[in-house]
Amino acid sequence: MSETIEVPLVPVELKAIDPDTYFDHNQPPKNLQWAHDKVIEFITQQDSNRPIALVTSGGTTVPLENNTVRFVDNFSAGTRGSASAEQLLALGYVVIFLYRENSLQPFNRHYSHNSQGMLGYLTPDGNGGVKVKDEYAIKVLNDLELFEKYKGQLLQVTFTTLSDYLFLLREISLILAPLGSRSMFYLAAAVSDFFIPSHNMAEHKIQSGTGDLTLRMNQVPKFLRPLVKNWAPECFVVSFKLETDPDLLAPKAKYALEKYGHQIVVANLLNTRKWQVWLITKHHDPYLLQIPQQELENGRDIEQDLVAELARRHKQYISSVSETQ
Amino acid sequence: MSETIEVPLVPVELKAIDPDTYFDHNQPPKNLQWAHDKVIEFITQQDSNRPIALVTSGGTTVPLENNTVRFVDNFSAGTRGSASAEQLLALGYVVIFLYRENSLQPFNRHYSHNSQGMLGYLTPDGNGGVKVKDEYAIKVLNDLELFEKYKGQLLQVTFTTLSDYLFLLREISLILAPLGSRSMFYLAAAVSDFFIPSHNMAEHKIQSGTGDLTLRMNQVPKFLRPLVKNWAPECFVVSFKLETDPDLLAPKAKYALEKYGHQIVVANLLNTRKWQVWLITKHHDPYLLQIPQQELENGRDIEQDLVAELARRHKQYISSVSETQ
Repeated sequence: MSETIEVPLVPVELKAIDPDTYFDHNQPPKNLQWAHDKVIEFITQQDSNRPIALVTSGGTTVPLENNTVRFVDNFSAGTRGSASAEQLLALGYVVIFLYRENSLQPFNRHYSHNSQGMLGYLTPDGNGGVKVKDEYAIKVLNDLELFEKYKGQLLQVTFTTLSDYLFLLREISLILAPLGSRSMFYLAAAVSDFFIPSHNMAEHKIQSGTGDLTLRMNQVPKFLRPLVKNWAPECFVVSFKLETDPDLLAPKAKYALEKYGHQIVVANLLNTRKWQVWLITKHHDPYLLQIPQQELENGRDIEQDLVAELARRHKQYISSVSETQ
Repeated sequence: MSETIEVPLVPVELKAIDPDTYFDHNQPPKNLQWAHDKVIEFITQQDSNRPIALVTSGGTTVPLENNTVRFVDNFSAGTRGSASAEQLLALGYVVIFLYRENSLQPFNRHYSHNSQGMLGYLTPDGNGGVKVKDEYAIKVLNDLELFEKYKGQLLQVTFTTLSDYLFLLREISLILAPLGSRSMFYLAAAVSDFFIPSHNMAEHKIQSGTGDLTLRMNQVPKFLRPLVKNWAPECFVVSFKLETDPDLLAPKAKYALEKYGHQIVVANLLNTRKWQVWLITKHHDPYLLQIPQQELENGRDIEQDLVAELARRHKQYISSVSETQ
């Protein structure tokens, strides 16, 4: 191995750029105006007593080229976000689901990411039509009924890049802000920590003829700060922290709460996240939620417990805020 | 902007590592043995007069951490590969489809990547069952019939990382090699050009607290050389070259043919690839295939023309080889 690859990661002491600077230097997504209008229309249609949740889900991408062939992606199928959206709907929430295009969606998540595809579930009905195979009919019918039942309380908005996500997050936050404590931000999306500013990016596909490649990436500004302080100051904000090193989990979560001043961090580890999460708040010890491996294998989602507990705390938050007013 | 990000890309003169070294230093995928057995079983079941195509499709990922949270991905939904597999099957080929997990699959591709998901196509049939909505029935029935018709001639194998892909490509190549000219390699997958060797990777999630990030990546060895020279020397090999800069397209394709000694490069540009491709061979001028925008909008795939032309040349190749024997 050549010396040049001995140290693949060289962090450099440097301050992250200011969030506003980010919006000045990046292009908004094509669906921003559509999302703006849709969200307003959607919210005004809802019963004003219902709590509203913005659920972000899936990973953001960071292009390495302006004509994008390559990008850095964040591992996330959208399992947590899509399962949580289902639970929030079941608990009476109105849900805006801001998700990575082609990542898992509520109710559809059981069918979209498998090797047989949609056609594998289907068979001709003999009368020129097509039906779901009998062995799947009961489960599909159940999910279909939920899918139809909650259609009116669920609005889905897609993003792909980090930039799409941040523009849409700001836009929707500003619309939800006036609803105050009634709004919950459930920020489960896996957001990139590093990016290459558009004006510093290679115009064309990076050529591989010349040996090694060194990528210098900027730290992504911490958007939780402006979200909590300026965009939606009275809303109930739940952020997520995924780590692979257990020792970093609690300290980093506490640090985030101190720094951004929001309500809860849901902390989890890459390898145990499907059955173990910690709710971390400023003034209490970490609150562990976990389900037995057995129940997991039986198809139970930890999101049932997680969302139920968060909804309970959101309710407390709403009344505590109304008392102080 | 700080000076440290002025030059995001610094190519370093350095020779790519040897392919064999790569296999010594990386872990094979979990499905390698399964794929080995399946491919042999699959091929032995087939009519020995049929041509066989290995179609690779979708993008490979390159992890940035051993406990992978982040990875570099290559832009590719798998449209070309999945559409081409359908055409090859229609022309009597047996197809091994080596594709990126959750990328587009033959026949299912029209239903898997859209916002309504599978449930959006379905409705209760009133008798406790579920059927495809009438407005979709004809199209779905048609694709379902093709899906069923070609089941026996199609074997699907999934990869995710660059390493998965390369191990599986070598394994399948060595199995197809004895079939000689009867085998076509249709290498449409978007394969990473750069990677971080496992032993040089960060063990845990890269921390973002310390400012910028510098990633030093190795060039991926050119596997087309051992594939053509050693793994499957007598097979008909079609490689694909995607560029964003028109001026680089032809010269890079010609260079690849000289260097690797295979039969055809299908060259295309990121922005016109859906209706314009060039077949580039060693001794002839580039052969342009394109379809009118109008037909594209009517749902016609350029893969119909592309695959028909490649199958014609494959046939010529087979007879030319048999003559010289």
